[in-house]
Amino acid sequence: MGFRVEHDLLGERQVPEEAYYGIHTLRAIENFPLTGRPIHKKLVMALVTVKKAAALANTELGFLPESIGKAITAACDEILAGNLLEQFVVDSIQGGAGTSSNMNANEVIANRAIEILGGKKGDYSMVHPINHVNLFQSTNDVYPTALRIAAIWLLKPLSESMARLQEALQQKENEFCDCLKVGRTQLQDAVPIMLGQEFGAYAQAIARDRWRLYKVEERLRQVNIGGTAVGTGLNADKRYIYLVTEKLQDLTGLGLARAEYLMDPTQNADVFVEVSGLLKSAAVNLSKIASDLRLLSSGPRAGLMEINLPSMQAGSSIMPGKVNPIIPEAVNQVAFQVMANDMAITLAAQAGQLELNAMLPLIAHNLLESLEIMDNAVKIFIKRCISGITANRERCGKLLEESFSTLAALTPHIGYDAATVVAQKALAEKKSVRQVVLEMGLIEEEKLNRLLCPYELTKPGNFEVRS
Amino acid sequence: MGFRVEHDLLGERQVPEEAYYGIHTLRAIENFPLTGRPIHKKLVMALVTVKKAAALANTELGFLPESIGKAITAACDEILAGNLLEQFVVDSIQGGAGTSSNMNANEVIANRAIEILGGKKGDYSMVHPINHVNLFQSTNDVYPTALRIAAIWLLKPLSESMARLQEALQQKENEFCDCLKVGRTQLQDAVPIMLGQEFGAYAQAIARDRWRLYKVEERLRQVNIGGTAVGTGLNADKRYIYLVTEKLQDLTGLGLARAEYLMDPTQNADVFVEVSGLLKSAAVNLSKIASDLRLLSSGPRAGLMEINLPSMQAGSSIMPGKVNPIIPEAVNQVAFQVMANDMAITLAAQAGQLELNAMLPLIAHNLLESLEIMDNAVKIFIKRCISGITANRERCGKLLEESFSTLAALTPHIGYDAATVVAQKALAEKKSVRQVVLEMGLIEEEKLNRLLCPYELTKPGNFEVRS
Amino acid sequence: MGFRVEHDLLGERQVPEEAYYGIHTLRAIENFPLTGRPIHKKLVMALVTVKKAAALANTELGFLPESIGKAITAACDEILAGNLLEQFVVDSIQGGAGTSSNMNANEVIANRAIEILGGKKGDYSMVHPINHVNLFQSTNDVYPTALRIAAIWLLKPLSESMARLQEALQQKENEFCDCLKVGRTQLQDAVPIMLGQEFGAYAQAIARDRWRLYKVEERLRQVNIGGTAVGTGLNADKRYIYLVTEKLQDLTGLGLARAEYLMDPTQNADVFVEVSGLLKSAAVNLSKIASDLRLLSSGPRAGLMEINLPSMQAGSSIMPGKVNPIIPEAVNQVAFQVMANDMAITLAAQAGQLELNAMLPLIAHNLLESLEIMDNAVKIFIKRCISGITANRERCGKLLEESFSTLAALTPHIGYDAATVVAQKALAEKKSVRQVVLEMGLIEEEKLNRLLCPYELTKPGNFEVRS
Amino acid sequence: MGFRVEHDLLGERQVPEEAYYGIHTLRAIENFPLTGRPIHKKLVMALVTVKKAAALANTELGFLPESIGKAITAACDEILAGNLLEQFVVDSIQGGAGTSSNMNANEVIANRAIEILGGKKGDYSMVHPINHVNLFQSTNDVYPTALRIAAIWLLKPLSESMARLQEALQQKENEFCDCLKVGRTQLQDAVPIMLGQEFGAYAQAIARDRWRLYKVEERLRQVNIGGTAVGTGLNADKRYIYLVTEKLQDLTGLGLARAEYLMDPTQNADVFVEVSGLLKSAAVNLSKIASDLRLLSSGPRAGLMEINLPSMQAGSSIMPGKVNPIIPEAVNQVAFQVMANDMAITLAAQAGQLELNAMLPLIAHNLLESLEIMDNAVKIFIKRCISGITANRERCGKLLEESFSTLAALTPHIGYDAATVVAQKALAEKKSVRQVVLEMGLIEEEKLNRLLCPYELTKPGNFEVRS
Repeated sequence: MGFRVEHDLLGERQVPEEAYYGIHTLRAIENFPLTGRPIHKKLVMALVTVKKAAALANTELGFLPESIGKAITAACDEILAGNLLEQFVVDSIQGGAGTSSNMNANEVIANRAIEILGGKKGDYSMVHPINHVNLFQSTNDVYPTALRIAAIWLLKPLSESMARLQEALQQKENEFCDCLKVGRTQLQDAVPIMLGQEFGAYAQAIARDRWRLYKVEERLRQVNIGGTAVGTGLNADKRYIYLVTEKLQDLTGLGLARAEYLMDPTQNADVFVEVSGLLKSAAVNLSKIASDLRLLSSGPRAGLMEINLPSMQAGSSIMPGKVNPIIPEAVNQVAFQVMANDMAITLAAQAGQLELNAMLPLIAHNLLESLEIMDNAVKIFIKRCISGITANRERCGKLLEESFSTLAALTPHIGYDAATVVAQKALAEKKSVRQVVLEMGLIEEEKLNRLLCPYELTKPGNFEVRS
Repeated sequence: MGFRVEHDLLGERQVPEEAYYGIHTLRAIENFPLTGRPIHKKLVMALVTVKKAAALANTELGFLPESIGKAITAACDEILAGNLLEQFVVDSIQGGAGTSSNMNANEVIANRAIEILGGKKGDYSMVHPINHVNLFQSTNDVYPTALRIAAIWLLKPLSESMARLQEALQQKENEFCDCLKVGRTQLQDAVPIMLGQEFGAYAQAIARDRWRLYKVEERLRQVNIGGTAVGTGLNADKRYIYLVTEKLQDLTGLGLARAEYLMDPTQNADVFVEVSGLLKSAAVNLSKIASDLRLLSSGPRAGLMEINLPSMQAGSSIMPGKVNPIIPEAVNQVAFQVMANDMAITLAAQAGQLELNAMLPLIAHNLLESLEIMDNAVKIFIKRCISGITANRERCGKLLEESFSTLAALTPHIGYDAATVVAQKALAEKKSVRQVVLEMGLIEEEKLNRLLCPYELTKPGNFEVRS
Repeated sequence: MGFRVEHDLLGERQVPEEAYYGIHTLRAIENFPLTGRPIHKKLVMALVTVKKAAALANTELGFLPESIGKAITAACDEILAGNLLEQFVVDSIQGGAGTSSNMNANEVIANRAIEILGGKKGDYSMVHPINHVNLFQSTNDVYPTALRIAAIWLLKPLSESMARLQEALQQKENEFCDCLKVGRTQLQDAVPIMLGQEFGAYAQAIARDRWRLYKVEERLRQVNIGGTAVGTGLNADKRYIYLVTEKLQDLTGLGLARAEYLMDPTQNADVFVEVSGLLKSAAVNLSKIASDLRLLSSGPRAGLMEINLPSMQAGSSIMPGKVNPIIPEAVNQVAFQVMANDMAITLAAQAGQLELNAMLPLIAHNLLESLEIMDNAVKIFIKRCISGITANRERCGKLLEESFSTLAALTPHIGYDAATVVAQKALAEKKSVRQVVLEMGLIEEEKLNRLLCPYELTKPGNFEVRS
Repeated sequence: MGFRVEHDLLGERQVPEEAYYGIHTLRAIENFPLTGRPIHKKLVMALVTVKKAAALANTELGFLPESIGKAITAACDEILAGNLLEQFVVDSIQGGAGTSSNMNANEVIANRAIEILGGKKGDYSMVHPINHVNLFQSTNDVYPTALRIAAIWLLKPLSESMARLQEALQQKENEFCDCLKVGRTQLQDAVPIMLGQEFGAYAQAIARDRWRLYKVEERLRQVNIGGTAVGTGLNADKRYIYLVTEKLQDLTGLGLARAEYLMDPTQNADVFVEVSGLLKSAAVNLSKIASDLRLLSSGPRAGLMEINLPSMQAGSSIMPGKVNPIIPEAVNQVAFQVMANDMAITLAAQAGQLELNAMLPLIAHNLLESLEIMDNAVKIFIKRCISGITANRERCGKLLEESFSTLAALTPHIGYDAATVVAQKALAEKKSVRQVVLEMGLIEEEKLNRLLCPYELTKPGNFEVRS
């Protein structure tokens, strides 16, 4: 395996002959052996899309010779088609505000363009990573722009998955709309509700998440490409600044807009904190639902066992027949990870200094992961758990009958004091509320049936004026 | 000091004669000696406002005798005018989803209403804390509703303060719009910018916060009053459910609306996580600005010293004349506290179970504090720091002259290689870029002046095509 | 109410005549209207103790005239006896690394010392806050030293409370050592355990916390008093540096030691992060136990109801007889707050810069609160919850009998396949494992009794070799 | 590519013929497509080590036929030598407390053992994943035991790296022990220090981290192997319980011990929170040092520029000669990630319920990553940054001369009032303190030289009694 020699400000280095990346990438590999994970594939795609937009704009404006511009564009297209992705080797956590990943993209594109033009990798006189591929750009406008694009790309399917989750929950709301059961507050038996109402409340929460994630996308659409090093656009041609954004809009179809004030997105990372904060809200809802499903399906004999989760894998080698709520457990864990990633994003965002936030790679690392694992978790949650949930109607009915939950509904009719006597008697004699009320002759059976009718018990405003 | 005897489910207790609270509150005092801090005053006000709305609705609908209804309303009005606040004694962190604070309100209002009717505190046959003051209510609809109202009350002034902060920053943007200085990325000298542009970027970030906080208010407006224990509205009269929300709208003027699905806000706390997440975004921006101001004003001799912060207090007993950036330091700390409070809110929100989130008091504790301390911090930030900032224009100019920042602007004209030589020569001979460029005859003085004109250096699209 | 005039570097101000604090404190009040809460009382006490130690050392060495030294000491003693605490008015969150609280102490002590000497408050020619009370000191050695002392003062009782908690749990371990029940993993019925073993596992966890908190105290004992501004001890006499630590040891009896390298504790706050991290470990254990107790006591009819928590207050106005697990809920919330406070401490600690951590007041604010509220929570947890827990032995037995938990114990004797058949049959015919095994003639009754003997089921190494 | 058919509780599935894993693993792959990352290699190794220990114990005790025992042991050895690692395919985040990874290990080992015995993969009559490989084990004792071993394996090199970091810092402490410079508090010029003292303070902090990480290892040594499902050891032979721990001690050489109370480590995860909390303390120190180094090396012209960091890569395409502090920036980001991972661990740990913590995989995911990336970061920090730091002694001297830092040292000799005049005069006339003091004739030159001697300025107790 041969080598080619490249040089930079710091000297010469041997680069593997077959590598499309160059000396800057090589140094970054050595500098950042940290997580062993490259940057997110969507971030690679977004970086290359920005490079393509710049090449198109610069060619159109005559800043790049057409042959070079075309070669760069063709190289970008190959990567966007899924090739050469293994050449993006810099660690996801890296010093330098993304410079290394920007240079990695510049070098891979340049070397592939050189090949397209019939040259040999490393012959930067043909296509230069900086002078051509990076023309009128700086890491400080390329990387934040690409991060916003990548985030939108991952946000859209998540938003869609949230819509599917809402639907799956609403389907269960309908399916269980007449399954009366004990409502519980503080884990103590409270008043009757429908099992469907529980899923309805979950659906409402997820509907909010869906809406939040849909709306926040617009905040990500403000990009700072054209601002170069600090947002003043130093060294970039004015016509380029206008055109590159247009090209990027065309290439992505995402409704991107140049930020009014290019210095702002170059240094401020609050938008990523905002998006992550909303992911955290969604994680809270997902976690709450997952925990509830685990509670409601606890058993099979010594738990609540009001619902059954579909069996996804055998649970135990030691306990025959044990099946565990593994999907909600996985959802809980993903939710916790998203909450933790939010902390990393917050820490990185607050550490910005003056004209730049050097910690942007950490934000990318965590934000893109959060978007992706939440989408993955929502998908298995729907498919491998919620869609297959069934109700143990008999069990729900039995627990309700045994509980004192219906007593609250009778209190307006028999008074708080009599209700307390009923409760005590039922507890002592192990009888149901219905039995005791009838035995004590407190309410006629027909009226009692009406009062304890499931729909009356769970419909808002069921109170009848005593008269 | 005498006592009166009250009783509850658990037995009898002596309550101090002068106390307006009763036995439920007494037990809560004993149960929760935790932080030593009562619930936020705004939450007291909001609880009492809910109580008043319920009394008005119940009186109008005939569920409360008019005399009792009027006495309750009058008692509420006294508290809303600022009286009896010291009677709200339950610890801010409390078990029971807010029951103790709801009962504290019920008892104080009942006892004051009894007095208004000419009775003696504790004679609950006249006005009963539960049967009258709490009629058709449950802690589980009262407390979340009150928390949302209290949060809006604190959000509005904060939103207003953010607008003031944006203005103060924009004023400095204008004031320093022609103060050219070194822009720094990764704390290294980069390209020239205007000091005003730095404040402009801060103003943009705060403008986003202002908008977010303004918009998120609507999310807090959905209330679950009328839902009683679990959101099904059990035991509440349908007409009451409609009327109490109307009354609450009238009393607060806040555009409140009954949630479509009352079970949802009873159990889901994601809206508080959303609001807190946005406060965290704002905290990130405030912290970043505060840190920058401390950097820019570092010195007076051995730091950057580009700006002066107004002196707010003497800094040191050991170092004559030392004045420290105490206001930005305080802002940083408040920002950190808001980030930490967000974690408490997140932990509490994800711990909700089934029909209720029993950890709501912790959410209230942290959310209301975050809203308040951030408002306080923003106010001192404006008044005691930002408004009084002055620029050290001479120092800015000197540092720029000494730095290589302007070299980047010359690169398109002299080439990257020559620029590197200039940099090396300047470094070795301790000369400025301007000096070396002239000495080497690389650019005519007149053209150089034009290229180094402040406005050209910081205006987007300053690149001139070489031709 | 009159005023006296004081002046400082920034000019003149009117100070209320009756105030013991002076102009520096006055400015701090105006600068930091943030949380509305003064610094922790223990921190006041610790600051004053440091001042006393310095006065004693300086008097003994002749740097302070004996009359002034005695007056300062006497003033300190009055405060340590509980007087003048209301004069410590600076907000707990403050810019300036604690300077304002140090000056507040200097001023209150000076003015009281002046009075003791027969003078009038404000006549600093008699006793000067800086020249006398603060002699050879800097905020930067006084405040961190005081914080460490205050933290130890709060750590000791917490450590003691943890020991009490461990004992209370062990008492329940003994009390329930023969109460056989279903063990649950992932909330699914697993294998049999003793209720006592569950409390035994809790006790083990708390034993670790107790040990951690006991051990970490030694880390807090390294103090930097004598280091003055940055730890170099500039302007302090060498003999003073030695003597003041000795005096502090005598006054506190805490085994304090001068840090080997005084610059270290002046700028590094990792020790507070370490202590807070251990509090977080304890919070995790407390939270886990509290959550478990809420699960185990869920019901009374439609939950697990294996244990009863003592009733601490009535739970509901709408549901007769409902009693909620308010104490564990409060413990959960305190645990969450401690976790959140840890984040504030971490954020503050990582923000230290060069020779000082200016965010130390935020660390004090959160660390002292965590120590105190955790101690309070542990105390109510023991007294108002754990000590009063009773077992529902009948319920435990019934759930175990109904469950398949014992089946795992029979598997080695009847084989996994037969066990699976038993499980299916029991489920279908709603019979117990015992019934089905006997009906199917799989194991003789006598042997079955032996195999299902509670002690055999829960004692390590119960497997009998098949032979 | 062919398939073989395997079946489990839920039915039949086709497994790729070449796969060593089986149907349980296959289902887990489908159930958990979450992060796309397998469990940490060290966790694989630890799981296989536990399997080997169990096989050795069971063979020795006669519970496993010797041929099967030997085949299992041989299969384990192959994996421990680095083979078949690609067969460990289950996602790192998984529901089920680690069951899927335990089964993955059982299946891979069984199938490889079958091959060793001359059979075909999938013929579990020869070696059974559960009956043989998992004999007397449960995920609930295997997985926590393996996690503790893996954590120790990663903790040891980290502890070693911390020692190296401490040495590197101490080397700089010595190297710069006579480089006098301005000390800064709150970023404001304070009193003189030696550059070496700054590195000395860093070394002290890291020394604490090193000690903490060394000491906490012992906490990880308590393992629960032998406890089976809930820690009662159900179905495991007593002799096995003793022997398996011994075997594990022999195989690892780590000083492992069986926990006194096996239920405790099965359900309590506080030890991982403790370890992670200490990593967080270390992260705080690393982050503080990294931030300081970036500050001290800011420039080259318009910053502090007191030290030079070694150049690791070119910094900018737009700014000739710019070199950025990329290594400290990477260290900051890793530190932030470790802090965030700590939150994930805390969330997971507090979510344990009753006899098990189902979130253990998330703890493993984050804890092992934290240990590894911190070690990686420390290594590059030493090698690529700290070792190569040089001092700009001239610059340090110049800034000190210009500053008023030395004035504090003169205050005891000329008085606070005169010192203030000197400061004002120096500021107005742009002179140094030395110049003004001499001009004003306040101190004789010879004495002044002595007072401003670097060693006097930075040595504790430099105060001379005025007499």
